[in-house]
Amino acid sequence: MSGQTEEMLKTLLARRKPGFALEAPFYTDEGIFDEDMKHIFGQHWIYVGVEPDVAEPGDAMVVNIGKSSVIITRDDDDAIRAFHNVCRHRGARMIPEGKTMIGNIVCPYHSWTYGIDGALKFAEHMGEDFDPKCRGLKKVAVRSVAGLIFICLAENPPEDIEDMARVMEPYLAPHDLKNTRVAFESDLIEKGNWKLTLENNRECYHCGPNHPELTIPLFAYGFGYAPGTLDEESQRDAQRYAELATTCHARWEEEGLPSREVEHLDDRITGFRTERLPIDRSGESQTMDTKAACRVPLGDLKDKAIGGLSFWTQPNSWHHFMGDHIVTFAVFPLDAGTTLVRTKWLVHKDAVEGVDYDLQRLTEVWRATNQQDADLVEISQQGATDPAFEAGPYSPYTEGLVEKFAAWYIGRMKAALA
Amino acid sequence: MSGQTEEMLKTLLARRKPGFALEAPFYTDEGIFDEDMKHIFGQHWIYVGVEPDVAEPGDAMVVNIGKSSVIITRDDDDAIRAFHNVCRHRGARMIPEGKTMIGNIVCPYHSWTYGIDGALKFAEHMGEDFDPKCRGLKKVAVRSVAGLIFICLAENPPEDIEDMARVMEPYLAPHDLKNTRVAFESDLIEKGNWKLTLENNRECYHCGPNHPELTIPLFAYGFGYAPGTLDEESQRDAQRYAELATTCHARWEEEGLPSREVEHLDDRITGFRTERLPIDRSGESQTMDTKAACRVPLGDLKDKAIGGLSFWTQPNSWHHFMGDHIVTFAVFPLDAGTTLVRTKWLVHKDAVEGVDYDLQRLTEVWRATNQQDADLVEISQQGATDPAFEAGPYSPYTEGLVEKFAAWYIGRMKAALA
Amino acid sequence: MSGQTEEMLKTLLARRKPGFALEAPFYTDEGIFDEDMKHIFGQHWIYVGVEPDVAEPGDAMVVNIGKSSVIITRDDDDAIRAFHNVCRHRGARMIPEGKTMIGNIVCPYHSWTYGIDGALKFAEHMGEDFDPKCRGLKKVAVRSVAGLIFICLAENPPEDIEDMARVMEPYLAPHDLKNTRVAFESDLIEKGNWKLTLENNRECYHCGPNHPELTIPLFAYGFGYAPGTLDEESQRDAQRYAELATTCHARWEEEGLPSREVEHLDDRITGFRTERLPIDRSGESQTMDTKAACRVPLGDLKDKAIGGLSFWTQPNSWHHFMGDHIVTFAVFPLDAGTTLVRTKWLVHKDAVEGVDYDLQRLTEVWRATNQQDADLVEISQQGATDPAFEAGPYSPYTEGLVEKFAAWYIGRMKAALA
Repeated sequence: MSGQTEEMLKTLLARRKPGFALEAPFYTDEGIFDEDMKHIFGQHWIYVGVEPDVAEPGDAMVVNIGKSSVIITRDDDDAIRAFHNVCRHRGARMIPEGKTMIGNIVCPYHSWTYGIDGALKFAEHMGEDFDPKCRGLKKVAVRSVAGLIFICLAENPPEDIEDMARVMEPYLAPHDLKNTRVAFESDLIEKGNWKLTLENNRECYHCGPNHPELTIPLFAYGFGYAPGTLDEESQRDAQRYAELATTCHARWEEEGLPSREVEHLDDRITGFRTERLPIDRSGESQTMDTKAACRVPLGDLKDKAIGGLSFWTQPNSWHHFMGDHIVTFAVFPLDAGTTLVRTKWLVHKDAVEGVDYDLQRLTEVWRATNQQDADLVEISQQGATDPAFEAGPYSPYTEGLVEKFAAWYIGRMKAALA
Repeated sequence: MSGQTEEMLKTLLARRKPGFALEAPFYTDEGIFDEDMKHIFGQHWIYVGVEPDVAEPGDAMVVNIGKSSVIITRDDDDAIRAFHNVCRHRGARMIPEGKTMIGNIVCPYHSWTYGIDGALKFAEHMGEDFDPKCRGLKKVAVRSVAGLIFICLAENPPEDIEDMARVMEPYLAPHDLKNTRVAFESDLIEKGNWKLTLENNRECYHCGPNHPELTIPLFAYGFGYAPGTLDEESQRDAQRYAELATTCHARWEEEGLPSREVEHLDDRITGFRTERLPIDRSGESQTMDTKAACRVPLGDLKDKAIGGLSFWTQPNSWHHFMGDHIVTFAVFPLDAGTTLVRTKWLVHKDAVEGVDYDLQRLTEVWRATNQQDADLVEISQQGATDPAFEAGPYSPYTEGLVEKFAAWYIGRMKAALA
Repeated sequence: MSGQTEEMLKTLLARRKPGFALEAPFYTDEGIFDEDMKHIFGQHWIYVGVEPDVAEPGDAMVVNIGKSSVIITRDDDDAIRAFHNVCRHRGARMIPEGKTMIGNIVCPYHSWTYGIDGALKFAEHMGEDFDPKCRGLKKVAVRSVAGLIFICLAENPPEDIEDMARVMEPYLAPHDLKNTRVAFESDLIEKGNWKLTLENNRECYHCGPNHPELTIPLFAYGFGYAPGTLDEESQRDAQRYAELATTCHARWEEEGLPSREVEHLDDRITGFRTERLPIDRSGESQTMDTKAACRVPLGDLKDKAIGGLSFWTQPNSWHHFMGDHIVTFAVFPLDAGTTLVRTKWLVHKDAVEGVDYDLQRLTEVWRATNQQDADLVEISQQGATDPAFEAGPYSPYTEGLVEKFAAWYIGRMKAALA
């Protein structure tokens, strides 16, 4: 970090005003972006994909996080392992981004060959003084939480992922993610800073004006509103939502489905939040008619109308688990003004496309919503770049979770620079 | 500005050699470009378009100047207003670049709604402590000079635009720009620094070798030549031009058309120059046959052969007003090596395309000339980037106005950094 | 150079560990890249093309080296001259990259006209005080070594090119490059730092796994191997190569073809290496069947089976001279992560395409090999960019010439910064 960046960053962190958007350089400055990659994406647990991405021993998935490339693979003992995708000889990137199957990991340059455990098994012409034991692949920490794979690039990963796992596993277990498969996957590049992507995800104030598809199943009121100011119809809707949430939570808990909100977005290193949210009308799924998109239920779930278990993590993911399918979102910053959002739609591993589900129907709500969000992130980035930009106030009723994201980010960066 | 940029810029400004091109970093250095945007484009009057762009109340035009985006709109009282195109909530850019019609200005993100006067009229969920009066759109200074719209991003815009308006209005008034409409508009991206675009515009030394179309109506000799060195034919041409200019100026002034040169390119903040220039052959218009391109005359102009009233402003515009049409040019820097040139062709508002004018004939001289100029700017930028570049001497006969542009720029930057 | 870059560069140069790849910033840092362009490409002899590129008086070739553009032309006295491609007036780039024919050098901007000797012959309107003798084109040093054209952008070019020429001319003369012509030329952009392109060229450890076409004519063992570790078949191959090399060198020297290795890659400013390498099977040419691709022999060469005379120079070229054709490679860095490789295939000037040679057959080995090398350079660059990159050890048997390239580079940069 240059001295200039450090000074600017420290000033900005110190004077951050709670309840207001961040100042512009947090969204636009490439020097701050580099610090984000180092301290946020380099030191925290990052959601990268799901166990079905590497379902069988020898399956491998390469994920790039900033300038780091990581191989995630399943070993013969069924354990998931992760390694830096950098040959220990002259440093070539060995496997391109995406999914593949491997016996060993062979560098294409000079055929240095590593086992799935990362050990260097073969390196020709290196001479008598060469010790292959010093040249195994560098390991990356990896942890599956009920089938969601998190990695951490730090030497000493935050230990509180264990607390998160302990809390979340009962919520997620009924959806049995490990027995799903990826029905569809999309990569969308948003023309904005990753924090704008996250802030956009942490509120539904924008849902009414922007998400005609999503607001069929989803109640925007589930994320707050100013009570005194609603018109009569909105007032009735809000009331209906509040009652539905109470009734549903009681019924679901009785059925053995943990549902009540747990919120730790800004009070721990590995920030997260969860709640099982009612779905409108039929109550089943985030689809255009709110009915299940897939006929094969997940896990042992009998009740279709179980709403959507939502799970948010800091800094880079959110997930919706329904009775028939799961949608998961991972955010990968590319540069200060560009962010990749990777979305996966999961159905039961035995469900057959065209028989049990229609791909268009399964994906249409979130494909439309993702594009709408990308457009909002883009105009936000344009605004943040404008010299006339001035951080405005968050709504105390509808943007409380945006504030929590911002507070978490500021806190983590302060801790890193302390 | 980094200390390094500041030191370099101050050194370069101090040692600038009059009569010579600027040194390379003025054209290539991104740090100096940022200072240009701050001190030149952020503190001076910038030409952005014409009143017919926002002819009726509710018409709006968004213009981007560097990283600033500005909404220019006509209010119900017929006044033109300008605002920063940045929502006061989370800063989204509200309206994309271009022209549109608006009732209110509504931010697409969370529907914050502003009146055409910039006042915040509606913002949901913001709570009891929120004062909308503190959250109106930020204003931008705007001034129409006989229908040419100038804006200024500075808090305290230079007041001498009033002098320029007082001088120029009698020159421009006969062409009645307010009763024209935009027949055609083109955006051309030049691969060069904005100062190369301006320098290229401020001389006609290059016209002979490069502008076969433009030199049909336009006399290159109108912008100077070395008298002793012309061959016989050129000598006759130059003489013919000098006599024509004297005769024409006398006749036009008699007809009530101010024509004589006024030149303030480098002796004031809002630098400008004007002169009514003879047109060759029929004397009517900048067309391939020098005849009027549009049958409907502008204003009350009876005489078709009134040449072209040219008007140049520092830092970013030039304009040609003829009896039948007007061509205006605005320059918008994009980065150190890229510049947008926006050209508008205006005809009488009652003129009908295909009946009163042919669009191809109206636009062909300047469309060809603009592209030729873009090619020259591109090779100039390539040269300025070459380590072997060394600022060469201007011709004392043909590049005097280039020198005035350079001197104005150097003077303004010195004043800014003082 | 910023103070930050200078400090980093000096630290990295000082701690460079012989026998190991360079540290990542040498491949990725734009500040170091600028220093490379200044000290390596701005101060050393750079291979740019061949005499047949400018075969006749008035032929001209423009080559860009980083931000410098150079005109190489043949004067009426048959001498090759080189000039900076920058007009001495306002600095325009006068001739675009590529080949052309010229009478004079005329700047397109204001028609300033220079002779092929660089003298300014015509500049209109410049006035009485203007002295054209002070405004000739700036010269660039140029030296042909047996028809290979090297230029040097430095004021005081290294004199040891004369030693290289004295050594190399007897090796190259039999192939009579001056009487060839360019049958095909390709520009390939590699997504990696120029040093990765060079390092890749300086070893054949990667040939076996990556170059199925090239390893038909070329013995990978010619560039070293670890003797104790080969399997039986490889052991036989290696032995066969060693014997062939001894026999061939003796026979060729007897025929008057200098063949033995000369190696000065890291012990002089203008580093180079040469050796005549046996070709497998028919021994004739780097083609898919190892037979000559062109029926017309080069020079007076009677023996077709003369292998390939290879010639490598620091910092930017390599060449293979065979009995029937020549392939030459020039490397031009574009930015820290992008490099242009320009390849030319030369045949006897009287050879007729379709009659004496088939273009596909002539070029296929190196077109395939170049693309394979580009892919390797790209994954190397990706790796160098990864925070997990750590410079690994070179093979003492197969990467000795890579080490010599690295040592030369480090030494030259140390000398420059001393």
